Amino acid sequence: MKAIKDSVHDHVPVCDLAADLLDTPALQRLRHVKQLSTVRLVYPSANHTRFEHSLGVYHLARRALDSLGVDGERAKTVRAAALLHDVGHGPYGHQTEGIIQRRLGRHHDEVGDLLAGDQRADDRPADDRLAAVLASHGLDPGEVAALVSGEGKLGQLVAGELDVDRMDYLVRDAHHTGVPYGTIDYSRLLAALRFRDGDLVLSEGNVRTAEGTLVARALMNATVYRHHVSRIAGAMLERAGERLLDSTGLDAETFARMTDDRLLGALRDCDATADAARRLERRDLYKRAMWAKREAVPDAVVAADHEEVRAFEREIADVADVAPEAVLVDAPDDPGMPETSTRVVVDGEVRRLADESPVVEGLRAAGRAQWRLGVYAPEERVPEVGAAAERVLGVEA
Amino acid sequence: MKAIKDSVHDHVPVCDLAADLLDTPALQRLRHVKQLSTVRLVYPSANHTRFEHSLGVYHLARRALDSLGVDGERAKTVRAAALLHDVGHGPYGHQTEGIIQRRLGRHHDEVGDLLAGDQRADDRPADDRLAAVLASHGLDPGEVAALVSGEGKLGQLVAGELDVDRMDYLVRDAHHTGVPYGTIDYSRLLAALRFRDGDLVLSEGNVRTAEGTLVARALMNATVYRHHVSRIAGAMLERAGERLLDSTGLDAETFARMTDDRLLGALRDCDATADAARRLERRDLYKRAMWAKREAVPDAVVAADHEEVRAFEREIADVADVAPEAVLVDAPDDPGMPETSTRVVVDGEVRRLADESPVVEGLRAAGRAQWRLGVYAPEERVPEVGAAAERVLGVEA
Amino acid sequence: MKAIKDSVHDHVPVCDLAADLLDTPALQRLRHVKQLSTVRLVYPSANHTRFEHSLGVYHLARRALDSLGVDGERAKTVRAAALLHDVGHGPYGHQTEGIIQRRLGRHHDEVGDLLAGDQRADDRPADDRLAAVLASHGLDPGEVAALVSGEGKLGQLVAGELDVDRMDYLVRDAHHTGVPYGTIDYSRLLAALRFRDGDLVLSEGNVRTAEGTLVARALMNATVYRHHVSRIAGAMLERAGERLLDSTGLDAETFARMTDDRLLGALRDCDATADAARRLERRDLYKRAMWAKREAVPDAVVAADHEEVRAFEREIADVADVAPEAVLVDAPDDPGMPETSTRVVVDGEVRRLADESPVVEGLRAAGRAQWRLGVYAPEERVPEVGAAAERVLGVEA
Amino acid sequence: MKAIKDSVHDHVPVCDLAADLLDTPALQRLRHVKQLSTVRLVYPSANHTRFEHSLGVYHLARRALDSLGVDGERAKTVRAAALLHDVGHGPYGHQTEGIIQRRLGRHHDEVGDLLAGDQRADDRPADDRLAAVLASHGLDPGEVAALVSGEGKLGQLVAGELDVDRMDYLVRDAHHTGVPYGTIDYSRLLAALRFRDGDLVLSEGNVRTAEGTLVARALMNATVYRHHVSRIAGAMLERAGERLLDSTGLDAETFARMTDDRLLGALRDCDATADAARRLERRDLYKRAMWAKREAVPDAVVAADHEEVRAFEREIADVADVAPEAVLVDAPDDPGMPETSTRVVVDGEVRRLADESPVVEGLRAAGRAQWRLGVYAPEERVPEVGAAAERVLGVEA
Repeated sequence: MKAIKDSVHDHVPVCDLAADLLDTPALQRLRHVKQLSTVRLVYPSANHTRFEHSLGVYHLARRALDSLGVDGERAKTVRAAALLHDVGHGPYGHQTEGIIQRRLGRHHDEVGDLLAGDQRADDRPADDRLAAVLASHGLDPGEVAALVSGEGKLGQLVAGELDVDRMDYLVRDAHHTGVPYGTIDYSRLLAALRFRDGDLVLSEGNVRTAEGTLVARALMNATVYRHHVSRIAGAMLERAGERLLDSTGLDAETFARMTDDRLLGALRDCDATADAARRLERRDLYKRAMWAKREAVPDAVVAADHEEVRAFEREIADVADVAPEAVLVDAPDDPGMPETSTRVVVDGEVRRLADESPVVEGLRAAGRAQWRLGVYAPEERVPEVGAAAERVLGVEA
Repeated sequence: MKAIKDSVHDHVPVCDLAADLLDTPALQRLRHVKQLSTVRLVYPSANHTRFEHSLGVYHLARRALDSLGVDGERAKTVRAAALLHDVGHGPYGHQTEGIIQRRLGRHHDEVGDLLAGDQRADDRPADDRLAAVLASHGLDPGEVAALVSGEGKLGQLVAGELDVDRMDYLVRDAHHTGVPYGTIDYSRLLAALRFRDGDLVLSEGNVRTAEGTLVARALMNATVYRHHVSRIAGAMLERAGERLLDSTGLDAETFARMTDDRLLGALRDCDATADAARRLERRDLYKRAMWAKREAVPDAVVAADHEEVRAFEREIADVADVAPEAVLVDAPDDPGMPETSTRVVVDGEVRRLADESPVVEGLRAAGRAQWRLGVYAPEERVPEVGAAAERVLGVEA
Repeated sequence: MKAIKDSVHDHVPVCDLAADLLDTPALQRLRHVKQLSTVRLVYPSANHTRFEHSLGVYHLARRALDSLGVDGERAKTVRAAALLHDVGHGPYGHQTEGIIQRRLGRHHDEVGDLLAGDQRADDRPADDRLAAVLASHGLDPGEVAALVSGEGKLGQLVAGELDVDRMDYLVRDAHHTGVPYGTIDYSRLLAALRFRDGDLVLSEGNVRTAEGTLVARALMNATVYRHHVSRIAGAMLERAGERLLDSTGLDAETFARMTDDRLLGALRDCDATADAARRLERRDLYKRAMWAKREAVPDAVVAADHEEVRAFEREIADVADVAPEAVLVDAPDDPGMPETSTRVVVDGEVRRLADESPVVEGLRAAGRAQWRLGVYAPEERVPEVGAAAERVLGVEA
Repeated sequence: MKAIKDSVHDHVPVCDLAADLLDTPALQRLRHVKQLSTVRLVYPSANHTRFEHSLGVYHLARRALDSLGVDGERAKTVRAAALLHDVGHGPYGHQTEGIIQRRLGRHHDEVGDLLAGDQRADDRPADDRLAAVLASHGLDPGEVAALVSGEGKLGQLVAGELDVDRMDYLVRDAHHTGVPYGTIDYSRLLAALRFRDGDLVLSEGNVRTAEGTLVARALMNATVYRHHVSRIAGAMLERAGERLLDSTGLDAETFARMTDDRLLGALRDCDATADAARRLERRDLYKRAMWAKREAVPDAVVAADHEEVRAFEREIADVADVAPEAVLVDAPDDPGMPETSTRVVVDGEVRRLADESPVVEGLRAAGRAQWRLGVYAPEERVPEVGAAAERVLGVEA
């Protein structure tokens, strides 16, 4: 069997199906989509891509299937889904998710059309190659796509509380950022996987293993994924992406299939976004004009939808007498904690981690305590934008 | 400067003072005292010793002193204390602490007599060498001993919520067991150390760093330090140690200065303990006859002192009709969480981690939920000992 | 002091000078120049950049200066040179070195003009920022540039047989490719550095340490740096770069200051290079039509200069009746082994490694045995191009 | 399947056969035999044991068997042999090999009697347990023993140029000493294993992989395995072992089955060896009175057998007027390089590494250049012993 060296899993054996899938433009494109998008502006070593992550997820899926004793055609379909689970991501991954969702009504894990070769756009890679490879290995694109979106018993392995996606990214992000918190005990997790009444669970004696993963993600969230510098750059990128689509003829489907550097190039070439592109490229970022805790922010602001947030931005810019693009309001969702519903066998019965571990509630509260509303502006505009934001949003000083 | 290779910190430069101290019998003895005593029976790679740990603590103390800008004579005294902080440990470290405490009224961090060269025992290493080295470098044994027991401003670095001892052992134990939870971000901790009004604190922005250490220790407690197999072996060792002292002329001071293998040899050579020695050497351990949660155990049993626990053992043996040494009752203390009082600067003020992080209460509750009363017996005696223990201790089935 | 997390060196403290330099466009540009250019097509995790490598070199320079007892202004100049040592690299690093050398007559370590702010090009970053930062810290750009090109006693630390550049890249490339050979004992190297009569040497007892580095680079050369797939992609990239400059108005100075993705974008946008760009982006590379050992290749072919090699390509294309761009001839230089002149103290005298270690000659011979002349072509043209190449180049079958 | 955590291989799944074998006294004994005996006196973290190494060899054997497609009963026998390959080692491993060879005429890889349960000694573990476990799993002790000594096609996996023993120890010793040279690419080696005409070979394209292993061991030899401090301690230990056997009633079979600490205890308890025991325990070692290169030493001295070397020691002691035990002569064998006969497929044919790689001859020459004759004595006797040794051995000053 062919093998590929990986910085995290060392030697990854690659089956024929995977070798063929890896050669498709849709997967090669992921070499040009970074796993952690703007996090590299905080942790400069974090340049790893969704390509190598996909390979890692494929590898862990193989190990999980071995551990669960699943083989044959079903295992093959899961391996394909694991390798393909990220092909639906837009440029800069999660940072363009909102745009793509609003414009195309599609989440990155909805890859049915893509796998079937039915998507159309001028500049997109020839994605019918994916359909052809799946067909030549006797796989049904619909079944693979269903697994990618977490459907069915085996879909839990690809997208669920105990999926191999999370196992890979925690360890990989730790390796590449240098922040150790993500270093979970994934070998033990893989060996502890069981099916009980169709549900994926952890075997007896693994409450701590599940807690370890939960805690790892919570700490990585706080120090890496939601670092304020990465959030600022992410907000700049998202708003620039919107402006690019609004001010050029670029269609959303083409946008969604871009790579990181194609998007950056397009932002550079468009007058409305050239400044943002230059700032992102040179790490000359906006600064925090406001950074408010949850209790200081009115509920209406927290609950505001995309259009309302844009209206806030315009109003703040107006009050502060700055250009509209000089104000970014960033009100993140509550951090999800899907791991809290991880199922673990305790004294012979299947329990949810949230019912079994008092740590869960603590982490949930910590997540809430760490939530911040951010308002960002060019460094020289921070004072007036901060003052205007307090007034417009009704945030207590 | 001389340097020593270390599996964890790589290249450890060693100053003249440290080089001289390392050559004393008291420090060389720590080559023969394992860091994790009986844990190696669960995690077979965990054979690291208090010698290399001491070297690691010395190294981190140097880095902490640099980071805090402390130098000169005070820094030298701290370096000596860091290197010597474990010379007071008996054989098998924490496993013989209770015995030494009861017989000699001394805790392992009380090393004043030892450093001054005043301890007397037949078989002990010539510990006046320590006093001589300290004197030759112009250091006062009393000051070093005070730091080892955590006294004074700089004592917090050696023994306190933010001490370098914990930073080293978490990372080292993770490296050698293969359990990743202990891999804390100690470089960030070291760089974040500050003094505020004489207290050692973490600088602004480090609540997560403190939480990370707390969580790391909680998970290492659950999976490594308090693993039931290690607890069983530890209980066997402790009771065998008691019997050895009771049934031979061995004096407690000599006992306290033994190495692991000298103690194992003494246990082998004594009729009353030869079976325990053989079992420990061959990992032919007692099994759990009872394993009861906190809520099932009467408060009086939890609160029982050493003599009362011994009385329970005798009574259970009597009821079960087995030899007295065939019953071990193991009621651990609540796991301490000293890190909860770690001081962190938050919004310019010094706060305690417990007041700042909702995770603390969750971990505390998890610690209580994981507490177990163990009663151990030879495999073939488990049924009758278990039944007798339920009756004698009043534990609900 | 500020600090930056690094995947290799963990916590890198950053002095004010370095913090200011890091903010300049010239250094931020290195975030977009990969350390190993096309190697990522073989080792998919090898996405690390010259930015983080520069930070690593700066960090090791600090440690080397400490170890050598150099401080004050001289140390500051060396730190600046270490951080800036790669700012002269073109896009895709070594892959465009030949082009830049031929068009601008400049090697990447000649950065005098760049540091003085004297380079002019339309699209280039505002590099006078570098000059301004150096001036504000009282440093002379000329002195820094001299160190970057290895001049003077301290220049040996930045560019020489024992430079910190090599120490960082070997370890970093190993970390990111997953190939362990580069994991040298750099802490020992740093501690062993000495000056003897103005020369940088390794102290007594370090012949093996020097050999270890030499062997590490030889093995990394064979398995990573000169992997045939990376060589093919590199040759495609270089020839496409030439065509881009020949067929558009792009000036060479602008070319030299591009980032990886700006160059890839430019190749995509130019008719003459769009196919190469697509192939590089999708890893749809040319294949080997010929792969010949040194002894099979006439000396005249090995010694051919750039123009002669281009003429060979045209002639082969002619004979094979394929388009001129369908033939790439790749005749690499002999792998240099600068480490062989590393100075080591042996029995009190300074010796050259090549005189002291019999391994050197073995590695040199191995390097020669591994040399291959490559001729590359699109997969479907391999047979005719291979046959034509044999005839035109006079290579024995 | 059960699993055991390992510091090197992380999660090691353990089959029923292995679980049963691990419980035998013969294997548990290896918990008390250090992998690197006296090396820990140089590299203090090197406390790993032959127990965990045996587990690692078992694990790599499983992977190698998978890679080669060997399963069923033959694979089971190989797994048993891999796990048991070190049970024949005496205390302190290689350091007592000479004694055991001379007294019992047995090499550590001759374990036939041991596996069959036929060895007799007073204090030995009940090794008939091994025979019982093998029988209960339907395995023939003779077949297992044959594999341990490298016989037959599959024996090459257990003891041969490409055995999994070497793969494990190089990586493990690197992990625990902190010396990186041993970090070989064992995953690639395992994947490259093939059988060709009954010989174990590496597949095409793996000359560098083989070279990498060879070089790794050569560098580990020079810096770790043959470090002069470890050699001194080893010589002290060996001679003390001889004296112990000569001056007490201890029979050689019992000696051969001791653990490290039982031997140290026995040395402490015997008047003739108590000083050596104390010195070894406290790292208060002899020093080098002579350290001569090969060309300075007469061939007759190099070729001297055990008895002749002892005679030299007595003569030197006599001339120097010191006690006989104050002189140790240590003339090591040439370092073997079994890897040079590793078979690799090159251009379709099986070749020996020595014929294919010019590095081999270089390493061989380096090995010879590093050879040293050592004469050791207590620090205060170094001058007179050195002078006497020069005279008696005829070594050029």
